[in-house]
Amino acid sequence: MTTNQVTFREATIQDLDRIVYMLSDDTLGNKRELYTQPLPESYTKAFNAINSDPNIELIVACYDEEIVGVQQITFTPFITHQGGWRASIEGVRTASLERGKGIGTLLIKWAIQRSKERGCHMVQLTTDKKRPKAFHFYEKLGFIASHEGLKLHL
Amino acid sequence: MTTNQVTFREATIQDLDRIVYMLSDDTLGNKRELYTQPLPESYTKAFNAINSDPNIELIVACYDEEIVGVQQITFTPFITHQGGWRASIEGVRTASLERGKGIGTLLIKWAIQRSKERGCHMVQLTTDKKRPKAFHFYEKLGFIASHEGLKLHL
Repeated sequence: MTTNQVTFREATIQDLDRIVYMLSDDTLGNKRELYTQPLPESYTKAFNAINSDPNIELIVACYDEEIVGVQQITFTPFITHQGGWRASIEGVRTASLERGKGIGTLLIKWAIQRSKERGCHMVQLTTDKKRPKAFHFYEKLGFIASHEGLKLHL
Repeated sequence: MTTNQVTFREATIQDLDRIVYMLSDDTLGNKRELYTQPLPESYTKAFNAINSDPNIELIVACYDEEIVGVQQITFTPFITHQGGWRASIEGVRTASLERGKGIGTLLIKWAIQRSKERGCHMVQLTTDKKRPKAFHFYEKLGFIASHEGLKLHL
């Protein structure tokens, strides 16, 4: 594989099984996802909600016919920063067999370019402190760790 | 003022001037907001985009007729966490003359309750590392600083 053979497109419902598989095939993901056949209905419901929202894009990276990566980009208008739009990236994952080949970098660079096209002034994401490699990966791409990312589980 | 006299409602366009004033009346906010008469059109455009999106609520805290606090809550479906919805809180501000009276706590508790009503499994936010007081405020409310909050300005 050379990285210029990787293409990007919005996910379809037919991709959902592969996406959930990739999300669950991960040290943190395997604790919180549930990859069964058939998939839990909650995934389908979320996919439909995402698919019907023009401000959310679920993006897959493909090599030939195969999906090798995924990310969700949400575009949000805020009153702050003079009413600026921001892009939030979530659920970034490269297929385990394809890691270390630069697909993650391509995903994020694609998201940055797309966020510019959408008129965003900022791209933001949070990364689990248990993933130091991911943290350095984002820093290398120009992200600044200016904020604490706080979560409250309900 | 006693805190049980504080009420909450969705903001209207008539509240926008006061909201932008509060956001700009702050050590970090005064560097990035532009409070002029008339307000820059970008604020109105953002308000309209927020107001027309059923998954974003711009909430004001009121004491009598006066707005004393604001926050934006965005509800987002994600594929991760088994297709769970999350609430993201942004732009939390209490009017400078009303700080230290517990209005911030009321705002966040209101957001948590609303997030439960909306079926979210998590409430999340990022707080600037230059605001250590805010960080401890959120920790006291039960938020866990499990993540780094990374930003890339475009």
